[in-house]
Amino acid sequence: MNKAFVKFSLVILVLLHALFIRAQVAVTWTPVQPGIWKAVIGKPESISLLKAADVSAYEKGFALLPSVGFPLDKKEIVVRQRDGKIYLRFPLQKEEKIYGFGLNFQTVNQRGRVLDLHVDHYGGKDNGRTHAPVPFYVSSGGYGVLIDAARYMTVYAGSAVRVDSEHPPKLYDRNTDKDWSAQPYSDAVEVLVPAQGLEVYVFAGPSPMNVVQRYNLMNGGGCLPPKWGLGFTERMPTLSSQRDIVGEAKLFEQHDFPLDFIGVEPGWQSMAYPCTFEWDKQRFPNPSGFLKELSAMGVRANLWTNPYISPKASLYPLMKGLAGSHTVWNGLVPDMALPQARKLLKEHFLKEHINIGVSGYKIDEIDGFDNWLWPDVAIFPSGYSGEQMRQVYGLLMQRMTTGWFRERNQRTYGLIRASNAGASSFPYVIYDDYYSHRDFITALINSSFAGVLWTPEVRASESAEEWVRRMQSVCFSPMAMLNAWADGTKPWSFPEVEGAVKEVASLRMQLIPYIYSTYAQYRWEGKPPFRAMSLVEGSGGEDQRDQYMMGDDVLVAPMFTGEKFRKVYLPAGKWYDFYTGELAGEHEIITITPGLDKIPLFVKDGGIIPMMPPRRQAPVPGQKVHLLIRHYGKANGSFALYDDDGVSFDYEKGAYSFVTLSVQRDSNGNLAGSMSDPQPGKPYGYTKEVSWVFMTK
Amino acid sequence: MNKAFVKFSLVILVLLHALFIRAQVAVTWTPVQPGIWKAVIGKPESISLLKAADVSAYEKGFALLPSVGFPLDKKEIVVRQRDGKIYLRFPLQKEEKIYGFGLNFQTVNQRGRVLDLHVDHYGGKDNGRTHAPVPFYVSSGGYGVLIDAARYMTVYAGSAVRVDSEHPPKLYDRNTDKDWSAQPYSDAVEVLVPAQGLEVYVFAGPSPMNVVQRYNLMNGGGCLPPKWGLGFTERMPTLSSQRDIVGEAKLFEQHDFPLDFIGVEPGWQSMAYPCTFEWDKQRFPNPSGFLKELSAMGVRANLWTNPYISPKASLYPLMKGLAGSHTVWNGLVPDMALPQARKLLKEHFLKEHINIGVSGYKIDEIDGFDNWLWPDVAIFPSGYSGEQMRQVYGLLMQRMTTGWFRERNQRTYGLIRASNAGASSFPYVIYDDYYSHRDFITALINSSFAGVLWTPEVRASESAEEWVRRMQSVCFSPMAMLNAWADGTKPWSFPEVEGAVKEVASLRMQLIPYIYSTYAQYRWEGKPPFRAMSLVEGSGGEDQRDQYMMGDDVLVAPMFTGEKFRKVYLPAGKWYDFYTGELAGEHEIITITPGLDKIPLFVKDGGIIPMMPPRRQAPVPGQKVHLLIRHYGKANGSFALYDDDGVSFDYEKGAYSFVTLSVQRDSNGNLAGSMSDPQPGKPYGYTKEVSWVFMTK
Repeated sequence: MNKAFVKFSLVILVLLHALFIRAQVAVTWTPVQPGIWKAVIGKPESISLLKAADVSAYEKGFALLPSVGFPLDKKEIVVRQRDGKIYLRFPLQKEEKIYGFGLNFQTVNQRGRVLDLHVDHYGGKDNGRTHAPVPFYVSSGGYGVLIDAARYMTVYAGSAVRVDSEHPPKLYDRNTDKDWSAQPYSDAVEVLVPAQGLEVYVFAGPSPMNVVQRYNLMNGGGCLPPKWGLGFTERMPTLSSQRDIVGEAKLFEQHDFPLDFIGVEPGWQSMAYPCTFEWDKQRFPNPSGFLKELSAMGVRANLWTNPYISPKASLYPLMKGLAGSHTVWNGLVPDMALPQARKLLKEHFLKEHINIGVSGYKIDEIDGFDNWLWPDVAIFPSGYSGEQMRQVYGLLMQRMTTGWFRERNQRTYGLIRASNAGASSFPYVIYDDYYSHRDFITALINSSFAGVLWTPEVRASESAEEWVRRMQSVCFSPMAMLNAWADGTKPWSFPEVEGAVKEVASLRMQLIPYIYSTYAQYRWEGKPPFRAMSLVEGSGGEDQRDQYMMGDDVLVAPMFTGEKFRKVYLPAGKWYDFYTGELAGEHEIITITPGLDKIPLFVKDGGIIPMMPPRRQAPVPGQKVHLLIRHYGKANGSFALYDDDGVSFDYEKGAYSFVTLSVQRDSNGNLAGSMSDPQPGKPYGYTKEVSWVFMTK
Repeated sequence: MNKAFVKFSLVILVLLHALFIRAQVAVTWTPVQPGIWKAVIGKPESISLLKAADVSAYEKGFALLPSVGFPLDKKEIVVRQRDGKIYLRFPLQKEEKIYGFGLNFQTVNQRGRVLDLHVDHYGGKDNGRTHAPVPFYVSSGGYGVLIDAARYMTVYAGSAVRVDSEHPPKLYDRNTDKDWSAQPYSDAVEVLVPAQGLEVYVFAGPSPMNVVQRYNLMNGGGCLPPKWGLGFTERMPTLSSQRDIVGEAKLFEQHDFPLDFIGVEPGWQSMAYPCTFEWDKQRFPNPSGFLKELSAMGVRANLWTNPYISPKASLYPLMKGLAGSHTVWNGLVPDMALPQARKLLKEHFLKEHINIGVSGYKIDEIDGFDNWLWPDVAIFPSGYSGEQMRQVYGLLMQRMTTGWFRERNQRTYGLIRASNAGASSFPYVIYDDYYSHRDFITALINSSFAGVLWTPEVRASESAEEWVRRMQSVCFSPMAMLNAWADGTKPWSFPEVEGAVKEVASLRMQLIPYIYSTYAQYRWEGKPPFRAMSLVEGSGGEDQRDQYMMGDDVLVAPMFTGEKFRKVYLPAGKWYDFYTGELAGEHEIITITPGLDKIPLFVKDGGIIPMMPPRRQAPVPGQKVHLLIRHYGKANGSFALYDDDGVSFDYEKGAYSFVTLSVQRDSNGNLAGSMSDPQPGKPYGYTKEVSWVFMTK
């Protein structure tokens, strides 16, 4: 019997081997951009994430990046195709950390996790179900991988252990060994994609920031919002009338509180959930007049909507054959992959909203929950399945609406509830209802690995402390937003902290020259404006989940309710307190005990922060404001100050300025500031009068 | 343009229609058993849930059921095949409730839910991820549907709404209408199965109980545990030695506390997590002697294990080519679909455990979490994927081990962490770590729709109250188990309630004649021993999640910590207090305020409850015990008392007794009990001496 058994085992082993080898797919890596390679596996589907986003690379941006070779050992990338699915494997080294895989809320390093990448409301667990489950990861080792498929894919980010691994985990006996772990060491990222084909991209660094830059540049470069998008915004209670909203804008004037745009919630529509996209005649008797009235106050309107078309909408009969097989809240789900469906929406939205002054949209409820959205059994007339459409719907909505504004040479800045890979250039900010302040900050950090923007929006608070802490951090995010749709809270609702709240909103406004230049970096170089600490050049791959960088120079360490002190990690080099200019520390973890009135901010040695005087609204085209330039620390520094008209796409045709701000020691050893001249004839919104402030004594 | 647009729309509509019609699959329903029809869709895979379970129907059981026709309008069952997936749709009527879809913990009626049926640890939400995600549902309308595929399937149980629905939900405006619902009415169950083919079964009733019976009979009839399996069991702390365990059994003797079998946790193995399946020489120097010593006390041993094979196991080199591509905790995952893998395990387990007296197993950790189990990217030498193997592993383990004992003509009764459709006849009880008492009871209720058994095991408690409440309900479940593996708690650990705990354990023992007969119903008629209220014949489809039936006559309404009173739903007819015989109510909801010392139990009018005197252990073959028969209420009644040797499968060859217990009013109008004679020569473990107790005065 033993002999027979050995024979049998050998047969099995041979079969097993054949099975694995047969299924293995030869992969060819083709360079597509500097430091980016693509492999086509199987027969890619006609829709994918990048195909849905449909954005061309910003090729000039790559010129600034170091030239690099393929960052992995190609033999260690294993691809198999079997049972209508693609199996992918990428190697991991012992010390590598893995960042990304979309907008996670609780963890930064994803190594060891299992994620089902699936567009959804975030449900309280980093399990891959989130608003932007981007199948892109960045290794602390300085390379990245993107899997382009509009499918629910399952990711084992260093959690699956193969029998034939060359780097097997150590063996422990749980009975007796305290070091036993439920999740042994794994030397690979493995991904299962239920698709007949897909495209994989590998990005070189050399640094993790370079990887992110290449990703964003490939996807068109980051979005450059209109300047007004960087101002403060409030969303109105849901059933507000046009009179209520104009009144609210006046209240902001009376309180001298910043307000650049205002969010108009579902009540503007004659029916919502599902939507008509038509103004409600009672609450909004004169939409055009309403928008003009706001405009006269320098305030823009952003309209809430979801895409589900009410049987009462004029679009309903036209869209009936152009929608998915299933309804959401009784509304048709327009098939955004059909040009005719997009055309109908465009005609309606332009005529009814945009042409009379609407500045943008908040596009809600296109993410989940499973119980709300169209089901996976839905089929769309374009031929795409519910699953495919769910993975790309947010992209298709962003692409469509972005295009509408672009054709008008008008920038927009809006809110989106679902996104995915390829969205870097879309002027949309993700948000949700989950409302954990701490997790909102982690999401902000993770947004920098996913080519998306995120706002830790403020709604209501249980205490003045929570209120000021939330307002402080939202003012250091892509969209400084109070979402009062449900509660009607005002920035000054908590009198104890009214001053501190106003101060931080004012600081946000003063920082617009710095922030706008930081977005210009996003646009031209692909560097995300709000970033994880591990994207700081020269950082050791830190994965703090509660502090982040705003641009190259400002470290933000928000405080959370109930905290009197916190730890802050300061990367290599000296770091200075933003408010006092004093040395805070150098490549160390410090403990700070800030008061309620300020959000802790630190500037790196030599950091130059261009600011402007406090104002309620972002500068408008042609307007010149005074520059107030701060320098921190002892080191020389320089800063590329960007400007353009702030509202149009003329910058793409060269209508912009880059002015270099420099600080150097003069012959006496004193720090002195200087700046290059703006190019004549280019938009440049600053006066010649410039104040230099050397913050560090 | 308008004309062109109309033309374009028409083309789209035609295409859309063609797409749907083309994809639709004609379905043929073939009768396979009385009241059960099967349809083969596409090309079913070589593995499925029922193929894994591999059980033949118990055909004789159908004879007792009414004859019925196909219970649905066949035209309303729509099947589509597209993109390598099967789309299924079944109609729902307005008032229908949907039960089942596996072992859910928080909800009974599943209508309106979205479930991804996926073998997993239960994670706190009824989302389809559970230990037994059985793709079978029972309608309150009196029919059932089973989808037989070893795949993760997505179920929209009356939650997806089609554009072309003939029963569309009412339209509401969320802006102004308080009746707006996030989940509008749906008239269908829709299921997406990512498989090239599958089999669907439709079960007729006419009652929901009849549906469940047909399901269980098709799957071999329910399991009949050995009698000792109905006694009390404790699982030992994990590193207990053989001496500790024998000592514990003696402690139970000293405390005069019931104990029929004892659980031997991981420490019996020389290495565990992964496992060697070999006795640890230090802790268990003499396994055979240890088992004999226990046996001398009437106590059996049940061995904990998981299937993952340690590199230190003697089986490891033999199994290396017969295991999946990935390890779990460094252990090989044997490919249970390979006969050779099963053979190796059988040889080892028989020789090392079963032949020396081990009575059964607790098979752990074959359910999830994703981070623990083999990944979906795993491939098994049998050719099955990680996904397929995950859905059937629990079934394959049950089938294999059940077979080992059956070949010895020896019944076993064990614990299993993962199961699925087809498991009715397997003598295994599901358990988990989730430990919500209330949700454990809901799981017990839902187990009756899934053809599985479940124990609300007791571990530790924060108070004496919690302790007695948990012990009370576990004694009214398929396995009366204290799992002390982590805490070492004893039944008498809370002195305040020691008496009450002992009383309920004793009551469990006294009720064995009733419970064993109830399991006989499961075996011969397919009626689950512990049942949802909606399975009470004549019930209106109630979906209580905190009360259930034990057999036909006993209603169990467990109390939970912190509750001084509770509501109890009493179905049609009169119901009587088990302890006093007093009338409790009639087809109504009553509120009771029981003390700590008793679990509320009610018996229906005419109910006959055969009991035996208190004892520590279940009767052994040949032993005769005294019968004490209770009658409740005013009505006549009868009860089929079942008996056999309690340990072997001889009952399948006719070696069993059915004795009819009857209560009828005599000519004077007094109730009087009588019983039929046991058949001579058949096993019957009761003395002739019988006490009749008429509980209701």
